[in-house]
Amino acid sequence: MHELQTIITDPGRVLVSDIPGAYVTDNLGRLKGQCDAVVFPVSTEEVSAVMKWAYAHSVPVTPRGAGTNLVGSTVPDRGGIVLDLSRMDRILELDPDTLTVTVEPGVLLSRLQAHVEEQGLFYPPDPGEKESSIGGNISTNAGGMRAVKYGVTRDYVRGLTAVLPNGEVITTGGKVVKDSSGLSLKHLLIGSEGTLGIITQCVLKLVPKPAYVLGALVPFASLKTGIDAVIRLIHENTGPTAMEFMERKVVELGERYMNLRFPFPEAGAYILLSFDGAGEGEVRTRAERARQAALENGALDFLLLEEKQVQDEVWRVRGALVKAVEAVSEQEPVDIVVPINRTAEFIAYANQVEQESGVQLISFGHAGDGNVHLCVVRGGRETEVWKRDLHAVMTRIYGKSRELGGLTSGEHGIGLSKKPYFRKAADPAAVLAMKQIKLALDNRNILNPGKIFD
Amino acid sequence: MHELQTIITDPGRVLVSDIPGAYVTDNLGRLKGQCDAVVFPVSTEEVSAVMKWAYAHSVPVTPRGAGTNLVGSTVPDRGGIVLDLSRMDRILELDPDTLTVTVEPGVLLSRLQAHVEEQGLFYPPDPGEKESSIGGNISTNAGGMRAVKYGVTRDYVRGLTAVLPNGEVITTGGKVVKDSSGLSLKHLLIGSEGTLGIITQCVLKLVPKPAYVLGALVPFASLKTGIDAVIRLIHENTGPTAMEFMERKVVELGERYMNLRFPFPEAGAYILLSFDGAGEGEVRTRAERARQAALENGALDFLLLEEKQVQDEVWRVRGALVKAVEAVSEQEPVDIVVPINRTAEFIAYANQVEQESGVQLISFGHAGDGNVHLCVVRGGRETEVWKRDLHAVMTRIYGKSRELGGLTSGEHGIGLSKKPYFRKAADPAAVLAMKQIKLALDNRNILNPGKIFD
Repeated sequence: MHELQTIITDPGRVLVSDIPGAYVTDNLGRLKGQCDAVVFPVSTEEVSAVMKWAYAHSVPVTPRGAGTNLVGSTVPDRGGIVLDLSRMDRILELDPDTLTVTVEPGVLLSRLQAHVEEQGLFYPPDPGEKESSIGGNISTNAGGMRAVKYGVTRDYVRGLTAVLPNGEVITTGGKVVKDSSGLSLKHLLIGSEGTLGIITQCVLKLVPKPAYVLGALVPFASLKTGIDAVIRLIHENTGPTAMEFMERKVVELGERYMNLRFPFPEAGAYILLSFDGAGEGEVRTRAERARQAALENGALDFLLLEEKQVQDEVWRVRGALVKAVEAVSEQEPVDIVVPINRTAEFIAYANQVEQESGVQLISFGHAGDGNVHLCVVRGGRETEVWKRDLHAVMTRIYGKSRELGGLTSGEHGIGLSKKPYFRKAADPAAVLAMKQIKLALDNRNILNPGKIFD
Repeated sequence: MHELQTIITDPGRVLVSDIPGAYVTDNLGRLKGQCDAVVFPVSTEEVSAVMKWAYAHSVPVTPRGAGTNLVGSTVPDRGGIVLDLSRMDRILELDPDTLTVTVEPGVLLSRLQAHVEEQGLFYPPDPGEKESSIGGNISTNAGGMRAVKYGVTRDYVRGLTAVLPNGEVITTGGKVVKDSSGLSLKHLLIGSEGTLGIITQCVLKLVPKPAYVLGALVPFASLKTGIDAVIRLIHENTGPTAMEFMERKVVELGERYMNLRFPFPEAGAYILLSFDGAGEGEVRTRAERARQAALENGALDFLLLEEKQVQDEVWRVRGALVKAVEAVSEQEPVDIVVPINRTAEFIAYANQVEQESGVQLISFGHAGDGNVHLCVVRGGRETEVWKRDLHAVMTRIYGKSRELGGLTSGEHGIGLSKKPYFRKAADPAAVLAMKQIKLALDNRNILNPGKIFD
């Protein structure tokens, strides 16, 4: 490992002893690996040189960005090198004419968003964790709140530079909008959780910044009525940016945690909407159509969040739900995705599992895309009991999602912790093809080995 | 080959002699292959059985849909089996709740669009050739007129069933909106021109049908001013569905061919816009903003196409441009894509090449995505002269597109005819990775071999 210091000569950028624990885990900190070195490259060339060395010596390499991963993708469970890309954090070029921004992978989402918004532009992907890195967002194909209208990270990647496991550097895509020029390595890299290549430069698509944003909180008697109304709102072409669902019992946790109050506490569930656009008039027109459609489809009310303070409070409670859960207990996050019309059925099943198992399950998420966040709550369980109960609950809920035509992950990825459920849910022939592709590009299986599949 | 008749026992669905010439070429008919059999499967199982047989016997297989390909992807230049999927043309399910339609690959675009529009839904991808098959659209990642607002075919594929070269059947994606569950085989298959798998079932995303559509024709003194204005219109967030550019000299060809007249004949170039949305009011608001921005940025006028007849005539001329060229001469189509702000520069260069080479180059295309359609016109050239002149012109224009940060194909694919230019333009390390992936999934190199790369 000391040879790495001849590749990266700055002694502050190669750690081979006293490695802080944060580098061998993910954001949850429960899965821990070990490594022999942490390297902080600052250029594509350095990443390439490190990978060439690792390839020559068959040393495993685990890339990481801001370390906000939730499924263990950044855990170096086979030792070797942790390649920390957080110092590759330059915003290289904002090009208004092509509506693109070119960045290094370590740039944090919050900084990117602020930077482009200052120029009147907008980077729509909006996963909950704003201190995540763009490289990580691409590696997990991160989704978030605005996916109903704007899509996910994949939809905003125009071009990538990446270092392959053998150290070769490839470029794919560019500033162009369309691309039918050969197999899409770009789309293969997106969502591959750092198993096929290390992203070192990203050309991202921007859109004009919406001039006007308006929120609405829509209370319903039950989640089922709320989800049915969501489908109607989509059909009515009201173009919402976000459509988040929350059961009342979950909101109460957030209220207590934030010491804030939601309007309409007698609701059984809420749908939180937002609308954006180039002008107030058209946004209000769409919101009004949404109001009518919601009220005709079971909404108890339709509260426009006109006051900035109320709007902020509602979104702060929504944003704090995971932290509200974690304040009282460890939890295992789940981000199952089902067809949007099966969301209510899936949550009803989760509620049933909660009743039957005694394990608390807290659900909320993205109603407009059927992407359900479940927190499986540990409570006071001893380690062995928790392992057993968690696995039993996970097996049931992943089984149900499969039955409903769902997939294991909508936005977090598979990593280590969702591997057993992915293995059960995915088509075996498809997983075999994935493994063949992995081996074709990484014949020594050194780049983030053992993630997604064995 | 006669063994195929034991796999598909219906004698009308296996041709082993007197094979019509249409099956060994593409839509242009200039590149011709030869084959030993044409098979017309009607199910995934039959496709799988044929591929298993072909794999066991190392027989090349060339899949085809409606045969509207323009780059030779459907030309069986290594013999073997042509697998014609046009009889797998069932629309299996229209699911309004999830806004998806599930179809077989042989369904024609025109039929799919009409079918979903009857139900108030909309399939946005709109390549010029409406009698193309959905399987073919996916295999080339077809783009078209509405890509500025709605994106390309890739953006509307939710799930695929495909048969791999060894006959294994895989499913990837589904009716779900988000997917971060393993390597994206779906996105790898999209645009792979039938080299990695044979698509046998497609789950496609739909959107609500826009209730109101409005067109506008915007004349400019020059193409350069027009393209600059296009960038302004995008920045103003006016949300156009289509932004097509046409130089006046090209329009004149279309006018003569269709015996129709464009308004404002004194223009040097036109930008043809359309807007759509859920209501007339919001569409007109955006069109009005576009009018102001266009007039402030060099537009000579801004003609709303209020009369259906005028609108139809303008679009008919636009739609007839390729045919207008072909009525007078053979032509080689090019669909280079450059960053949107380099489009005018690229066309200026094409005009310069035309001057210098004496080879007529007719350009038009998608201004909103920098996707330029060039027709390289043969005129009266003898075969050898044409080959030489064409290659000289193509080398120059593909070289220029590379210099401008462009790519070889925006929507047609690489196939056979663009291979030499793709080889020069693409990153060699990336092409090597593509070949490794191809070999990993097709170790006998039997599925559409020799397309995209050797």
